[in-house]
Amino acid sequence: MGGPEIDRLIRLLAKLPGMGPRSARRAALKMLQQPDSRMLPLATALADAARSVRSCSLCGNLDSRDPCSICTNPQRDRTLICVVEGVGDLWALERAAVHRGLYHVLGGTLSALSGIGPEDLNVTPLLARIREGGVTEVILALGATVDGATTAHWLTDRLRPLGVTVTRVAQGVPIGGALDVLDDGTLAAALRARRPS
Amino acid sequence: MGGPEIDRLIRLLAKLPGMGPRSARRAALKMLQQPDSRMLPLATALADAARSVRSCSLCGNLDSRDPCSICTNPQRDRTLICVVEGVGDLWALERAAVHRGLYHVLGGTLSALSGIGPEDLNVTPLLARIREGGVTEVILALGATVDGATTAHWLTDRLRPLGVTVTRVAQGVPIGGALDVLDDGTLAAALRARRPS
Repeated sequence: MGGPEIDRLIRLLAKLPGMGPRSARRAALKMLQQPDSRMLPLATALADAARSVRSCSLCGNLDSRDPCSICTNPQRDRTLICVVEGVGDLWALERAAVHRGLYHVLGGTLSALSGIGPEDLNVTPLLARIREGGVTEVILALGATVDGATTAHWLTDRLRPLGVTVTRVAQGVPIGGALDVLDDGTLAAALRARRPS
Repeated sequence: MGGPEIDRLIRLLAKLPGMGPRSARRAALKMLQQPDSRMLPLATALADAARSVRSCSLCGNLDSRDPCSICTNPQRDRTLICVVEGVGDLWALERAAVHRGLYHVLGGTLSALSGIGPEDLNVTPLLARIREGGVTEVILALGATVDGATTAHWLTDRLRPLGVTVTRVAQGVPIGGALDVLDDGTLAAALRARRPS
């Protein structure tokens, strides 16, 4: 259509999550019409991020600093570690601003089906962080899936002997959620975990 | 969350057509996890395209060559020029591989409402191309909107005196389209333009 540069750009844009060939063409066209104000800034941002962002060697968060800006923030509660599956979960909790402690990114969950065992997860560094002392509670904020529950169970067995309180995020009716659209598992969990009103 | 580089990347990705803050975060996260295989190639493709792609000085197509690869292709029928509103329309026709002639990109349509007059469109170069001789037919492939029809009418008045055949793409029922979901205007146009079966 317009040379190999445009074809390659559209092919790479189409691989982004949420994009397809059609939206990639629209995005490419829009950017090609404003190369200086739209394309070059994005090219620079991508190159900068690729060069500077790395995994935090303490918690597994992605940041341009190592240790990351959460691990080095003196305002955060260092007695509290929230264990999440991935960086996307950490981002969600940070956007909600609901956790004032530190994090630990597992990098997945145990999964017999996908052949993911404990050695594939970022577990040993978590145990080391707790053995170093200072941590009193570990919050397991894993997904409410079979693999998430298995992982939470397995982690609890390993963490409790280290003398820390281990908790899990509650399961129940999402805020704003109607009961009649919820699945049976969520309804059962919400009933089981009922509290005095 | 993870430093200014990640924030800036997400902000720029969210501006792409079809993307929002949520999909931009997903895309950024996915790329940050594979910087070398996903991020740097896209950064390079964007920078390459921004540097090399420009408007064809003959037809207005976007290409890394000027004149563009369509204008310089000896296989194309140089007696036939298809006039389109934008490069996206040209891409659509090229994907469908239904036009074997050349193109001319107007860069918009006349619009009293948006204050777009003939001087804002790429019209003078079109008239010059035809005055140079060799063109026998100009196909107006403009949108079936009020502005598209106005522009087609206005262009026809200017092109006909130059001794070329001026045609318009047909309006009617889209292939695969059911009649009962079509608007009245399309139905009327399809009936008006009926042909012997």
